Amino acid sequence: MVVSEDVINESSALVELEKKLDVCFENKQLLNVAVTHSSYANGKKNIKFNERLEFLGDSVLQISISEYLFLNYSKKTEGELTKRRSLIVCENSLYEIAKKWDLGKYIRMSKGEEITGGRERVSILADCVEAIIAAIYIDCGFEKAREFVLSNFKDTIDKAIKNKIILDYKTKLQEVMQKNGDVNIQYDLIKYEGPPHRRKFYTQVSVNDKTLGNGTGYSKKESEQSAAKTALKELEKNNG
Amino acid sequence: MVVSEDVINESSALVELEKKLDVCFENKQLLNVAVTHSSYANGKKNIKFNERLEFLGDSVLQISISEYLFLNYSKKTEGELTKRRSLIVCENSLYEIAKKWDLGKYIRMSKGEEITGGRERVSILADCVEAIIAAIYIDCGFEKAREFVLSNFKDTIDKAIKNKIILDYKTKLQEVMQKNGDVNIQYDLIKYEGPPHRRKFYTQVSVNDKTLGNGTGYSKKESEQSAAKTALKELEKNNG
Repeated sequence: MVVSEDVINESSALVELEKKLDVCFENKQLLNVAVTHSSYANGKKNIKFNERLEFLGDSVLQISISEYLFLNYSKKTEGELTKRRSLIVCENSLYEIAKKWDLGKYIRMSKGEEITGGRERVSILADCVEAIIAAIYIDCGFEKAREFVLSNFKDTIDKAIKNKIILDYKTKLQEVMQKNGDVNIQYDLIKYEGPPHRRKFYTQVSVNDKTLGNGTGYSKKESEQSAAKTALKELEKNNG
Repeated sequence: MVVSEDVINESSALVELEKKLDVCFENKQLLNVAVTHSSYANGKKNIKFNERLEFLGDSVLQISISEYLFLNYSKKTEGELTKRRSLIVCENSLYEIAKKWDLGKYIRMSKGEEITGGRERVSILADCVEAIIAAIYIDCGFEKAREFVLSNFKDTIDKAIKNKIILDYKTKLQEVMQKNGDVNIQYDLIKYEGPPHRRKFYTQVSVNDKTLGNGTGYSKKESEQSAAKTALKELEKNNG
């Protein structure tokens, strides 16, 4: 029976996720679809996946953030509001929120997607957060969805307003270090592990031959950014 | 007195516009700001203009259309929904709606903007429609704003669903004519008038030396598109 594959496992995963989201769905199937990646539906019949919800969720997210910025920052120009919104409504902030919920473990995906790192893939996690926002919008209405967005994006909004969102940690580290004169920043790949389709890279960053931090990622670039981020955190800690 | 310039003229223009929009604003000042172009505020104090409202209105428009498409076209994929939405939520459809209301005549703008064709400028009119949508959202709430969007975009949505929105009339004319074999389509600038900063162009399109339509615009390109559009309408009429 193909249909039976889409039965909701109410007793465990979904209920646990509902608790984390602090939302009780009347229609549990909506949440089930929101956490179903397209790969899971491949070759199966009657399985709905989250792409259409993601389409709607993006709009719910946009209006919630736009309205908040519009109402709370009456002195900011349209250009400033647009810039802040683009810092808040982006893949990276959606990914950060997904990580807080440990969302990867609740997503239904194909075995193939899973063994190539799907549960940690930024785009899959970010899209799933948007789909969950849409599911709440449909199940509980606009007010509740807006409230959900604002409470989950609170930290991101604060950071965006205070210009504390950094998109490129390597550039930022360069800027910070150069304040003390010329520096030599070096990124060294110290090891990698795993099969080619799921290789994990480990990078160490050092400034004038002093190690400042380590980072990991599923590409060299990602691991370098991660190392720079760690170094910036260390510097911040040491400077009070 | 600088402030007095921003007094609302309740007795005429705004009331007339409210009737056209079929919305009664509790806070008339919101509509007043929505129809105030930034140029009007230049060099004046305490004049609010519509750019911040436009920022919010875009999101209200997006969610209204997204939700409508999501709910009414359950068989369409995310990709198809996104494509349709981009045809509906675009400068051109906002401009078409503005023209229906004769919106240009209600916009407050600087003399300079006005004499260079501001009241007919596509971007100014489109932005003003978005600002009006936001004004309704703030004044009357989400439900009313969505209803307003859907009733005003009904025709555009229908056309987008039926794939009847044409973005490039010249290309479309070429496609239509070539069905009957090789053709020679020629666009002739037949005249232009007005000062350089507000020059109006008149273009005639002919196919194999037979005139098919005329068009006007504030650039050569615009007048050619307009001529192609007229020609397509003529062809449609003749073909039943």
